[in-house]
Amino acid sequence: MKERGARPSFFSEKINKRDVCMKFNELSAEERAALLSQYTAEYEAYRARGLRLDLSRGKPAAEQLDLSNGLFQALSAEDCRATGADYRNYGLGEGIPAMRHLFSELYGVPEELILACGNSSLQLMHDTLMRCMVFGVGDGHTPWCREERIKWLCVTPGYDRHFAITERLGFELISVPMTEDGPDMDMVEELVKDSAVKGMWCVPKYSNPTGNTYSEETVRRLVSMPCAAPDFRIFWDNAYAIHDLELDGDVLADVFALAEEVGNEDRIYYFASTSKITFPGAGVAMMAASKHNLAHLKPLMNLQTIGYDKINQCRHVAFLKDGATTMAHMHALADSLRPKFACTLRHLSELRALGIASYTEPKGGYFVSLDVLPGTARRVFFLMKEAGVTLTQVGATFPYGVDPKDTNLRLAPTYATLEELELGMSILVLAVKIAALESMV
Amino acid sequence: MKERGARPSFFSEKINKRDVCMKFNELSAEERAALLSQYTAEYEAYRARGLRLDLSRGKPAAEQLDLSNGLFQALSAEDCRATGADYRNYGLGEGIPAMRHLFSELYGVPEELILACGNSSLQLMHDTLMRCMVFGVGDGHTPWCREERIKWLCVTPGYDRHFAITERLGFELISVPMTEDGPDMDMVEELVKDSAVKGMWCVPKYSNPTGNTYSEETVRRLVSMPCAAPDFRIFWDNAYAIHDLELDGDVLADVFALAEEVGNEDRIYYFASTSKITFPGAGVAMMAASKHNLAHLKPLMNLQTIGYDKINQCRHVAFLKDGATTMAHMHALADSLRPKFACTLRHLSELRALGIASYTEPKGGYFVSLDVLPGTARRVFFLMKEAGVTLTQVGATFPYGVDPKDTNLRLAPTYATLEELELGMSILVLAVKIAALESMV
Repeated sequence: MKERGARPSFFSEKINKRDVCMKFNELSAEERAALLSQYTAEYEAYRARGLRLDLSRGKPAAEQLDLSNGLFQALSAEDCRATGADYRNYGLGEGIPAMRHLFSELYGVPEELILACGNSSLQLMHDTLMRCMVFGVGDGHTPWCREERIKWLCVTPGYDRHFAITERLGFELISVPMTEDGPDMDMVEELVKDSAVKGMWCVPKYSNPTGNTYSEETVRRLVSMPCAAPDFRIFWDNAYAIHDLELDGDVLADVFALAEEVGNEDRIYYFASTSKITFPGAGVAMMAASKHNLAHLKPLMNLQTIGYDKINQCRHVAFLKDGATTMAHMHALADSLRPKFACTLRHLSELRALGIASYTEPKGGYFVSLDVLPGTARRVFFLMKEAGVTLTQVGATFPYGVDPKDTNLRLAPTYATLEELELGMSILVLAVKIAALESMV
Repeated sequence: MKERGARPSFFSEKINKRDVCMKFNELSAEERAALLSQYTAEYEAYRARGLRLDLSRGKPAAEQLDLSNGLFQALSAEDCRATGADYRNYGLGEGIPAMRHLFSELYGVPEELILACGNSSLQLMHDTLMRCMVFGVGDGHTPWCREERIKWLCVTPGYDRHFAITERLGFELISVPMTEDGPDMDMVEELVKDSAVKGMWCVPKYSNPTGNTYSEETVRRLVSMPCAAPDFRIFWDNAYAIHDLELDGDVLADVFALAEEVGNEDRIYYFASTSKITFPGAGVAMMAASKHNLAHLKPLMNLQTIGYDKINQCRHVAFLKDGATTMAHMHALADSLRPKFACTLRHLSELRALGIASYTEPKGGYFVSLDVLPGTARRVFFLMKEAGVTLTQVGATFPYGVDPKDTNLRLAPTYATLEELELGMSILVLAVKIAALESMV
């Protein structure tokens, strides 16, 4: 089996076999008190500087965005008419062929299953759920708004915006712990025996925030497990499919191919976008689904809009050109990100040595997931806030915004400059140490 | 009261006082047979030419689109950072301030009520309806998917894509005839006494397809009428707000101002877009709603997307600049459209003289609504199709796609070239005459 980048962490009971607090635990109470006093003094010095840093959101830095500035001049009116169709006008609800082709090249999904859409894959996921609510997943299936009760599987830690949608729809969110190989599949297989469980959020590659990539075995089990609900659906958000930090990035199994082997291709709604390839919010999103699902979805999507922004699709094709050119662009982006991830991990290594934290070391994506001593994450967040550094809200990576162990922090190293990040991480290390020592009193 | 452009037509019983078929009626059966034979021969000559013309959709012609080609080079990366915020990145779910300001200038709606969104106002209407279905119109209101039965008012003839959404949602569509002043308000006021009537489609200016503009009295009655359903909503699709053909275009009353006078501003969901200002499908759409409605809608819209395409909004601001520049652009577009409408009306005048048709003469918008003798519209459509000219499907302008009197044809003069239009209209006149004569046998 291929080696994936993410390491074990506290968040899964199953893999939480490592002894924690080794070093700090070996100290006497007096030694710990002395250290706490020393760290607190150092922390106060930072706090007095009145800093303002943001390590909270997975946004690209301006330096990365600059690499896509070619988009601004990439296109002329002639390019929009080059195929004979006039992309300036109405029509082509499934997107322009060249963009669907490029997505197919990049994601390895057959072109005929791909719709090239608007600027947001989140919107596609949300709208697909709304269609499930109002119309159901297909003919003969009950609209979900008519169901008494719906349960939904959330791999945790996970993406807050996913959880927020299904929470607002009134679903009961069930946490499934992330393991090194993806979601805890024994648990998933057990849960889907309940017909109220209608679906599941998955970020299968460089998962937000752990950076894990699902193993082939996990993907195989997801597509082949028997589900009590005939309309069970996996929302497969492949947001970081080509977002490798290193050349030997993780390899994700082909979900449609594996699903077809067992005749379960209707189970998958597949999403991706160029949001972190070109410009967040001004990119192109895609959705892919089986032919049977598309036959149901396309007329419903055609009710919603006459077509997505074909000019922006055409612009992206002019700029990204083909798979090879796009991957070269991704390597340039990775060059810009690599020092930031290295900086983050370098600082965190001190915490690991002290036995007071574990963290993932992803080979791609946008986040590092940090687990501090259980019961101290909120304290760390507070200390950081007081020092002027914004972290992602504790609990944001869990359903209902509650981390039951108060242990997980999502670090987003991309948006800050390297200098800001160095500073922020120095303070974070101090804050984690302070919170740990306080908890050991 | 201001004079509005659209004239009476067959489609409203109330105003259908004109005597029809005067001229053809005065002829003897022999004379009519002779004419029919003559017209049929002329028609056959056209048919033999194997033409292929499309007068079916309200799409701008390439010549119009060319007037917006400045958009392609309007923007640089610097422009996207000029305000301090970086529009290339995530954020600003309500749209960029400059675009909201421009919309406010163009539509006379307060900026704080406006959201600048994606490329499609249809999408905003659809999504707003989906939110009504799943979440209801606001706190304390029942989601519409839980209602036993929902009825919806459709001003007819009207826009097929509006009707299609509410039909697919399972609403019972109720036709309300269009009059010269807008919907038949006596009928509307009667219908909304039924609490199952939850809303209404309106295209208040240069309505698709009649070109009528609602009178101030109509707008006033719409916002002030007592409605049995507390969650009654008017979907105010002001698609042609600034699309005048002449300088003395129709003036539409300020719906929010009139609604506020009577405390009913929550009744209005307002939509518009630049689709027929710049590029259809690659423009910017807007939604406006009362503060109270926005407080409910914005968190729900924030679930759906992190933000719309701010770069395209910025691009539009760079190109359209301000209200005055945009109106100059609209005048240039009108210059291109005016000869096509003139050509259409010139041909139709022969039919009016013969007493076998009535039609609207809009001062703006995208359509001319033609009423032929009741029972002959489908025959005209068929004759046109046989001659290679595609018209909008008969019935498309009515709920469920059925024109109960088989009388209405929507003419879309914009997309064809003037030469094609001349030819198409010549054939149409023949077809209407043939169908009329056939019906008099």
